[in-house]
Amino acid sequence: MKNYVEPIAKLINHFSKLPGVGQKTAQRYAYSVIRMNEEEIKGFANSILEVKQKIKYCSVCGNFTDVDPCGICTSRISDTICVVQEPKDVLAMEKVRDYSGLYHVLHGTISPMENRGPNDIRIKELLSRVSSGKIKEVIIATNPDVEGEATALYIARILKPLGIKVTRIAQGISMGSDLEYADEVTLNRAFEDRKEL
Amino acid sequence: MKNYVEPIAKLINHFSKLPGVGQKTAQRYAYSVIRMNEEEIKGFANSILEVKQKIKYCSVCGNFTDVDPCGICTSRISDTICVVQEPKDVLAMEKVRDYSGLYHVLHGTISPMENRGPNDIRIKELLSRVSSGKIKEVIIATNPDVEGEATALYIARILKPLGIKVTRIAQGISMGSDLEYADEVTLNRAFEDRKEL
Repeated sequence: MKNYVEPIAKLINHFSKLPGVGQKTAQRYAYSVIRMNEEEIKGFANSILEVKQKIKYCSVCGNFTDVDPCGICTSRISDTICVVQEPKDVLAMEKVRDYSGLYHVLHGTISPMENRGPNDIRIKELLSRVSSGKIKEVIIATNPDVEGEATALYIARILKPLGIKVTRIAQGISMGSDLEYADEVTLNRAFEDRKEL
Repeated sequence: MKNYVEPIAKLINHFSKLPGVGQKTAQRYAYSVIRMNEEEIKGFANSILEVKQKIKYCSVCGNFTDVDPCGICTSRISDTICVVQEPKDVLAMEKVRDYSGLYHVLHGTISPMENRGPNDIRIKELLSRVSSGKIKEVIIATNPDVEGEATALYIARILKPLGIKVTRIAQGISMGSDLEYADEVTLNRAFEDRKEL
């Protein structure tokens, strides 16, 4: 970094902490910031500060929000909760046209490898929401990897005794993808879960 | 953007103004900012503001700097100036091990298409630096495209009468690239400029 003047080096360093941003991309971003006008610069810096000040977790669902409880929790009347790992997964599920129910963000998965048990993610909170008696179905939309699967099975096991319908989003071949390039595990799962036409 | 709470939407909007950053990447960056700690956030926001406040153009070479004249202009004694289009090109040329001379940033190219003539870029300033009599060679390192070439030729034409050696960085096949994928213009140039071994 010896050739950068200090303020630029500092900004490049900050940009390079963003996910997937290397030295070269960070440099490109920093140089484009220098070219922005005063107003844009201030707006950019302020919105970085603001996001930290104003965004908190919804005390009900655990999603990011600027009001507590969040917009989804207060505006939707539903007997269905979709359980996801991270706040960004709520955005992904919101693309599902037929779903307009509630959410529950776990903030992680059960992971013995990383020493995270059921008490380290928001499973207690899910249990108490479900115990209220208004929830009929819990759709588990954790990622289809080892930890996501383990978490899904764990949640299913503790919810089923309460008489709740627990479902898991389907796994199989992605739409538009090529069978040739699908991995073995996915193919096996797609075969097992085949549907009659 | 309807599903984002406002402070997040604003930050995503700012990130998406960076070069090559789309909606999805901007969202990823914004979510990672939320996860940063207080100190990192403040440092990030400050360095964005600082870069605008502290960085100016060097009055001699035109490169970005926090002191005027810049570090390169004050510390190097050389009779060679390398002419580049943009401040970021100085960083690129600094990778050349054998070059430790001065720079001159044009801040653009001559471009009749975009209505930019010789007076819209820092050619006057180059002329007055060269007229001081201490400069023996001017290496033109503008990009090898139509505008960069035109600018190079223009500068060569006005400097040669002053008895200055004017050179242009070589054009040809990139190291490590494949002849098969080289474009016609590059191949022709590489052929014309062939060297005896």
